[in-house]
Formats: sequence, C-alpha cells, structure tokens
Amino acid sequence: MTHPVLYNCPPSGNCYKVRLFAALAGIPLQIRNVDLIAGEQKQPWFRELNPWQHVPVLQDGDTVIWDSQAILVYLAEKYQKTDWWPSAPGARARVVEWLSVSVNEIQHGPADARLVKLFGYPLRYEDAVAASARVLPTINEQLSARNWLAGDRPTLADCAAYPYLFLAPQGGVSLAPYTALEAWMERMEALPGYISVEK
Amino acid sequence: MTHPVLYNCPPSGNCYKVRLFAALAGIPLQIRNVDLIAGEQKQPWFRELNPWQHVPVLQDGDTVIWDSQAILVYLAEKYQKTDWWPSAPGARARVVEWLSVSVNEIQHGPADARLVKLFGYPLRYEDAVAASARVLPTINEQLSARNWLAGDRPTLADCAAYPYLFLAPQGGVSLAPYTALEAWMERMEALPGYISVEK
Repeated sequence: MTHPVLYNCPPSGNCYKVRLFAALAGIPLQIRNVDLIAGEQKQPWFRELNPWQHVPVLQDGDTVIWDSQAILVYLAEKYQKTDWWPSAPGARARVVEWLSVSVNEIQHGPADARLVKLFGYPLRYEDAVAASARVLPTINEQLSARNWLAGDRPTLADCAAYPYLFLAPQGGVSLAPYTALEAWMERMEALPGYISVEK
Repeated sequence: MTHPVLYNCPPSGNCYKVRLFAALAGIPLQIRNVDLIAGEQKQPWFRELNPWQHVPVLQDGDTVIWDSQAILVYLAEKYQKTDWWPSAPGARARVVEWLSVSVNEIQHGPADARLVKLFGYPLRYEDAVAASARVLPTINEQLSARNWLAGDRPTLADCAAYPYLFLAPQGGVSLAPYTALEAWMERMEALPGYISVEK
C-alpha cells in the first residue's frame, strides 16, 4: 500500500502541522522535500499540484490537497481519527474555530514575525509583533480555563495552532508572559508520538 | 422549536457568510443585531459568548460558536446539508481549502481594504490592495476551469468566499479584470434563495 505523499519544507510551520498530527495519530506519510530556495514551488509540475505555489501539499492517489488545515481534515476523515476530529456538530465546529484562528490571527501574528526575522520576507515586522500582542493574551486566557483548545483532549485544533506558537520565539516574540500557553505547549510535548519541528 | 440565534451586524461580510448559507440551504435563524458602534461587543455578556469580541456568533441552546467558517460547518453538520458540505474526505478537504483562503488571503486582501475604506480601520490600505492583486488572479484562474470553487455544485466554500469578493468594490478593489470570478458571482446570485448583503 502506498502512503500519502507530503510535499514538505523542513522549517515550514504549516508543513509541521501535518507532520505533527500524522506523528501523534499514527498516520504514515511519505515525505518529499521541495526546494523553496531553488524555486521548485514555481515549476509547472508543482504549480499543477498547487496554484498558490506553497507547501504543504498532500497527494494521495488522485487526490491533491493544498492547505495545511484542509490536509489535517482530509487525513482525520480518511483514517477516521474521530478522537482528533470529533463528529458531534458542536465539538467539530469548536475545532474549526481554531483552524481559522491558526490561519488568520496566528499566521498574521507570530508566524509572519518569524517569516520576516528568519527568512527576510517582505512583510512589516512591527505589524506582526503588534498582531501577536493582540492574539496571544486571548489564547492564553482560553488555555487558563482548560487543558486543550477544543474539548477535553487534544484535537486538530491543537495540531494547527501549536507549530507557529512554538516557533514564535524564532520571530522575536516571547511567550514568557503567557504561562497558560506555555503549560499547554508542555502538555503537547508530553503526548505519545510528539515530534519537534525539523531544523 | 427555537431556532439558532445569530449575533449579527448587517454590513459585516463575515455575518453575511452565515446569512447567505442559511438562506440558500433553507436553515431558519433568529437574527439579533449587535451594535458595534456603541461597543456592545465589548460588554461582558458578549465577551462571555466570544472572547475575540467580534461578530458573528451563533448560539444554539448551550452551544456557542464564534467563527464564521465554524458556524457554516456547524449548521451544515447539524442540518445534515451534505450537498453543501460533502462527506467524502477529498471533497470535504477541498471545501476546507476555501474556508482557509476565505479567512486568510481574502480577509487580508479585499476585506481589509474595505475595512479601511468604509469603516476607517487602522490597517494599511496599500498592503490590502497589494494582497488583493496577489489573490484575485489565482481565484479567477481557478474559476476559469470550473463553475464552483470546490466540486461541481455550490458548497460552503462558495458561501465563505463570496461575501468579501462581492464586497471588494466597496473597498476600492475593482473586479472588472476578473471575468471568470464575475461570472461565478452571477451564478451565485442566480441560486434559489440567494440574498444580498444587508445595507
């Protein structure tokens, strides 16, 4: 049996979302690294897979999925990981709330700050830092009241949100003021199967 | 039977996503407008519903959902609208791709431009216009090849993406160069039950 192929870039937090969930849930993937520095993502074969020309992309037979949140949902559905993607409408919607926060507030706060600081992306660093200062207190407050972002066990919500929060210090955004958030990160790191980001 | 309550603001594109889907899919909602200008979203009762202090919020008995994409998924799951939220893993993931684009690229392109132009939000107008110029050609290209964003019929993907694309001209972002996108908007507007945004 052929496993799904993850088109990957080791330091990408979006790719790490997928690798992390697959590791925690025991889903086998084939990893195929894409050389972003050489511009491989702009080549026609990759553009055919993903018109947005970014990683990650998942290819599973004829099925090609290009967004990290969508890949999480795809894998959870295909491998029936209903503990990570609950089936009750309210519980499922609670997970989707955090998929949105991950791709909006977390992306345009700590993740953008890291893109500038580490990779020289042409974004406004001060805007990303200011956005981080708006989003992190609310996440910290949420995690002061419970152990996991959505429900009483880890879900896709935690897998989507964790990478760019974990990587925030690389963008010069300190998490030290956010003790509940740091305690949640330690809970994530204690989960069986947990893997760190690749270097 | 009590219908779910949508905490709403008439000109909000995010609220319109929910009203539009509910209208197209025949889901009854009670609408409760929140007075954002008076700061009602900052009052403790609202902050209790939504720690992010923004609309929309859906309240259905004890279930409270705060993100527009999550509300779409909740309503589709609860009312079993599998035509709008397909159950096959690949088809479902394709919808989630566009939920992400709606809350990321579309939000930080045309939606942000409108927030500045129409409501004086302290965002950088030129950045939002530049982001729009990056996202719109890719969406247009996708819609040149097919009638709907995800699959061969309208889905939650179209309901999530349409509002801030439809509203783009209010932010000074012209859609005239994007003829496939405009043709898709006309298809949306011809659907039974279609409603426009409130004034």
